[in-house]
Amino acid sequence: MCGDGDGLPTLRCIIGAHLWRMRQGMAGCSIGEVLHVEIEKRLEALGLMLPEPMKGPPGARLPFVNVRVWEGRAFVAGHAPLDPDGSIAGTRGKVGAEVSLDQGYAAARQTALAILGSLKRELGDLDRVAAWLRVFGMVNVAPGFNQPPAVINGFSDLILELYGEEAGRHARSAVGMAVLPFDIPVEIEAEVAIRS
Amino acid sequence: MCGDGDGLPTLRCIIGAHLWRMRQGMAGCSIGEVLHVEIEKRLEALGLMLPEPMKGPPGARLPFVNVRVWEGRAFVAGHAPLDPDGSIAGTRGKVGAEVSLDQGYAAARQTALAILGSLKRELGDLDRVAAWLRVFGMVNVAPGFNQPPAVINGFSDLILELYGEEAGRHARSAVGMAVLPFDIPVEIEAEVAIRS
Amino acid sequence: MCGDGDGLPTLRCIIGAHLWRMRQGMAGCSIGEVLHVEIEKRLEALGLMLPEPMKGPPGARLPFVNVRVWEGRAFVAGHAPLDPDGSIAGTRGKVGAEVSLDQGYAAARQTALAILGSLKRELGDLDRVAAWLRVFGMVNVAPGFNQPPAVINGFSDLILELYGEEAGRHARSAVGMAVLPFDIPVEIEAEVAIRS
Repeated sequence: MCGDGDGLPTLRCIIGAHLWRMRQGMAGCSIGEVLHVEIEKRLEALGLMLPEPMKGPPGARLPFVNVRVWEGRAFVAGHAPLDPDGSIAGTRGKVGAEVSLDQGYAAARQTALAILGSLKRELGDLDRVAAWLRVFGMVNVAPGFNQPPAVINGFSDLILELYGEEAGRHARSAVGMAVLPFDIPVEIEAEVAIRS
Repeated sequence: MCGDGDGLPTLRCIIGAHLWRMRQGMAGCSIGEVLHVEIEKRLEALGLMLPEPMKGPPGARLPFVNVRVWEGRAFVAGHAPLDPDGSIAGTRGKVGAEVSLDQGYAAARQTALAILGSLKRELGDLDRVAAWLRVFGMVNVAPGFNQPPAVINGFSDLILELYGEEAGRHARSAVGMAVLPFDIPVEIEAEVAIRS
Repeated sequence: MCGDGDGLPTLRCIIGAHLWRMRQGMAGCSIGEVLHVEIEKRLEALGLMLPEPMKGPPGARLPFVNVRVWEGRAFVAGHAPLDPDGSIAGTRGKVGAEVSLDQGYAAARQTALAILGSLKRELGDLDRVAAWLRVFGMVNVAPGFNQPPAVINGFSDLILELYGEEAGRHARSAVGMAVLPFDIPVEIEAEVAIRS
């Protein structure tokens, strides 16, 4: 997909080529710093902010980590849609009942931002995500609401917009759950490949 | 399990040993071409055809890839049972209500063929699947239908028949979902190891 | 987290450092044998026993493996809570209805023991688990029971107690399923990193 899109993918290609040459020891350029803020620049251009770490509901004990890094992979725990201050977003309940499809889509997009926030805190830099591999999108569904994919598109659309078709494309399931914790409408877990 | 089954596993063992020797640089035989159509020959012998790529329902936007390959692994998106032309199979609804256990089993087998079709298109050759690792089998269940494993067996039985106990054996979950997209009775995602 | 906890993590650090030196070829000590029973000693100290392999219900055919090992990873199939003899534990039904939160927590802890039993049989030695990576905790929920995390804590608490914060920490989802096989209250699948 290199160079066939809008300006940003093209920029990414140029930077990618430079980086490749740096790795080959053919050039010592200072473009690394530019690369290191690529995804965050795109977030800024879209007017999007990453939320603070999740504040669980009072009394909830959550003895796990949001991101587990191991040998070139980051395993991303199930994330909820968050408000900027890290509290669980106010939209609660079942998509197809209390929560509309559009609200579900927005919640999935918020969940993407929550995951990006966790990845940034863990990796230091969102450009270290080399590839999105697996996305498991869970929708808190009312009986008969058979469009989980249209909800989880809120996640996939943002990831593809930020990372482009090459790094951003991912294998995905989008399915309907009986219950999600704290009645959140959407929960998403993922696995990504990372650069050292 | 090498050599203790019927003729095909034994053939596989012989080929595997040759391949191993080739990798060790001890022999330069032309057996590779035979190897490359092993699984497809078995499909043919069983009278099975791989379906065309999935045609989503009109208006459904599915911004993800069916298979994501990365460093020796292929992440397989959640797949639906498909008809040969790639349209979602007509059996819809909840296993234990509109869909019988036998129909569910058949749907899981169709889902295996859909996944094999995606893997063939992505990898070029189904023999590049070195090992089935993880299978996550989701059944669209009616309340009280507590036999998801008997449904997902339709998938596991075919994979084991095609790949044998060595490459085909997989860790699996088989569970009951509140909703699956488009009211499909079964959805399966997987992770496999691949040969370069 | 090395050395900042109670005596056991500190012991682990000492052993870990020795092992590291052994790998560097700087020392040939016989501490390996001690290391090889670390986790099992902790289980013993807690008065916990690993159950026998699962005996499925009469007539249930389960054509998959409990643990699939591949290149430094072990994929752990969905496990049920087991009694010591390997039969599925008697607590059945939906958490929030027939099964209380406390019973669900206990079932998740039993499921951890079942998984450890499978890993020991497959790996020979529970110290070969280098890191817990991904845990997917499924709770058989009654409508409106929105606390799957409090149930799956029974798993995470035990894993962290046995493996410590360094090796034991994991990315996790804890979600509510419409149905689990044989009406078990909890099913957990996982991925761990292993030492050769």
